Amino acid sequence: MKLITFSREGITQRVGAIVNEAVIDLHVAYKSLLTSEGKIRAGQIADAFVPADMTGFLQGGNESVKLAKKAIEYALENKTDNGYRLVYDLNEVKVEAPVPAPGKMICVGHNYREHILEMGRELPPYPVVFAKFANTVVGPQDDIPFHPISEQLDYEAEFTFVIGKRARNVSQEDALDYVAGYTIVNDVTYRDIQRRTIEWLQGKTVDGSAPMGPYLVTSDELQDPSGLEVVLTVNGEERQRSNTANLVFSVQYLVEFLSGLMTLEPGDVILTGTPGGVGVARNPQVFLKDGDVVKIEIDKIGALENRVTSVKETAEVK
Amino acid sequence: MKLITFSREGITQRVGAIVNEAVIDLHVAYKSLLTSEGKIRAGQIADAFVPADMTGFLQGGNESVKLAKKAIEYALENKTDNGYRLVYDLNEVKVEAPVPAPGKMICVGHNYREHILEMGRELPPYPVVFAKFANTVVGPQDDIPFHPISEQLDYEAEFTFVIGKRARNVSQEDALDYVAGYTIVNDVTYRDIQRRTIEWLQGKTVDGSAPMGPYLVTSDELQDPSGLEVVLTVNGEERQRSNTANLVFSVQYLVEFLSGLMTLEPGDVILTGTPGGVGVARNPQVFLKDGDVVKIEIDKIGALENRVTSVKETAEVK
Repeated sequence: MKLITFSREGITQRVGAIVNEAVIDLHVAYKSLLTSEGKIRAGQIADAFVPADMTGFLQGGNESVKLAKKAIEYALENKTDNGYRLVYDLNEVKVEAPVPAPGKMICVGHNYREHILEMGRELPPYPVVFAKFANTVVGPQDDIPFHPISEQLDYEAEFTFVIGKRARNVSQEDALDYVAGYTIVNDVTYRDIQRRTIEWLQGKTVDGSAPMGPYLVTSDELQDPSGLEVVLTVNGEERQRSNTANLVFSVQYLVEFLSGLMTLEPGDVILTGTPGGVGVARNPQVFLKDGDVVKIEIDKIGALENRVTSVKETAEVK
Repeated sequence: MKLITFSREGITQRVGAIVNEAVIDLHVAYKSLLTSEGKIRAGQIADAFVPADMTGFLQGGNESVKLAKKAIEYALENKTDNGYRLVYDLNEVKVEAPVPAPGKMICVGHNYREHILEMGRELPPYPVVFAKFANTVVGPQDDIPFHPISEQLDYEAEFTFVIGKRARNVSQEDALDYVAGYTIVNDVTYRDIQRRTIEWLQGKTVDGSAPMGPYLVTSDELQDPSGLEVVLTVNGEERQRSNTANLVFSVQYLVEFLSGLMTLEPGDVILTGTPGGVGVARNPQVFLKDGDVVKIEIDKIGALENRVTSVKETAEVK
């Protein structure tokens, strides 16, 4: 499945599935299916098994995925239930980040083999990992806010996976059973702020610095996360290109490594690192500016495109 | 007020206030107060204004704090409502971490002046900040789990503040209005894992590595976060001692600095750094071992004491 989180005017964020250009509201569709079967507590059962928020939905695991598939079939046949719509056109909704509020966002640095070797470095023995917080997440139809705290706004194309099952001490062999699916994140970085101390967090977790989406492609549909081409362009000009086959630390390795340190939860988002070609490493250096359009395409996942928009710094929130 | 999160057998975590050795269940007490005033929707109003979870309670801001104080007065006079208890003895409940599931945990490194200077370093121009995730949080009555992934388990006494009001671009002058209160965190660190790459996260966010508590002392009760003595002992032997007057970057500075980068939310937890004397910096080095008791005392906040317990690594969660 291709899952999204979407919103409509006056409606809070909801999980949807994309079929061609149609968006199925999974929660409402499953509730309608249950009602059609004569279930009186359809609403409560749908809340329990196919909830309207992505993290809740992922917590349901394979059981919820199976029920969602039944809901999709039902919705495509019925379209409405007593006048309420189960299906929208994609252009009628706003597509939000698939996981709008991840419990953890874990990022991997220095993970593309050819880039490390071309820089004359040795392959690292351990992944470098760092954090972003959920305040960074924006959706595929949102702008990238450029806060006036730096002049070095930079992009980083990242192949990203989302945890679908609580994971602790999981082996590489079993790792993919714990992955709900895959998406794209632009690990937007305020480069000078990242580098002014030894720890990167402050340049990585600025509000709005993690555009995510457009879809969460579930791992039953994309069974092998290796061999996917990753391309980033700025205003149509190619800046980064590599392939997930070049990852030093694969998705499977990262699940084993990270779950050996901490409990991973459904909805945790893991960014696997970025290829060479970021703005700060170019000669001459080039950074993002107001109006630039950054597009990341990954095979079988889709394209994430966002415009950079300078923001006047908001006044103190009182 | 001294706020806690507590649990009892079969009862989920709830916000309480400590008065002497009594624990007032704020949500239940406020509901009872409303019922005594003839409010029919007492439960719903209490859910809205004095919810049972700490993050929800903090989101209510000063309005909720005022109502909680009325609830405390009512509970101390009435003790029960139709047989349901509003008040417990402290020894009847389990005290949990005051903020069991922070949205962000932001840690500051290198922040005690005398320690930096004694190491012959210059005072840093910017705070070093890094993250822990919420999987690290355990309570004051929990053990510190020592996972068999390292032999270098270390302690770090940290004076900690909790955000009480959404904060973005807040000035130092106004900063304390955004602080709900203060507590203690032991920033337990797997030192070799912290240091095996340039980013510290992997040694900092191991499950159970942030004992927190025992209380959240609200900022109306503790108006000046400077001048508080911080002492850490291991098995009664003093290992760290300093005073929050020695912080290079004060609470006020950190609110301004961090809220200039990101939106801080009620329930976000900020650890202000640790004094000299950590195990790895001693000569000879000394690390924590199974059975050690680590106690952190901070003036006007209380004492946080936890025992280190080796855990057999849990098998893969299936």
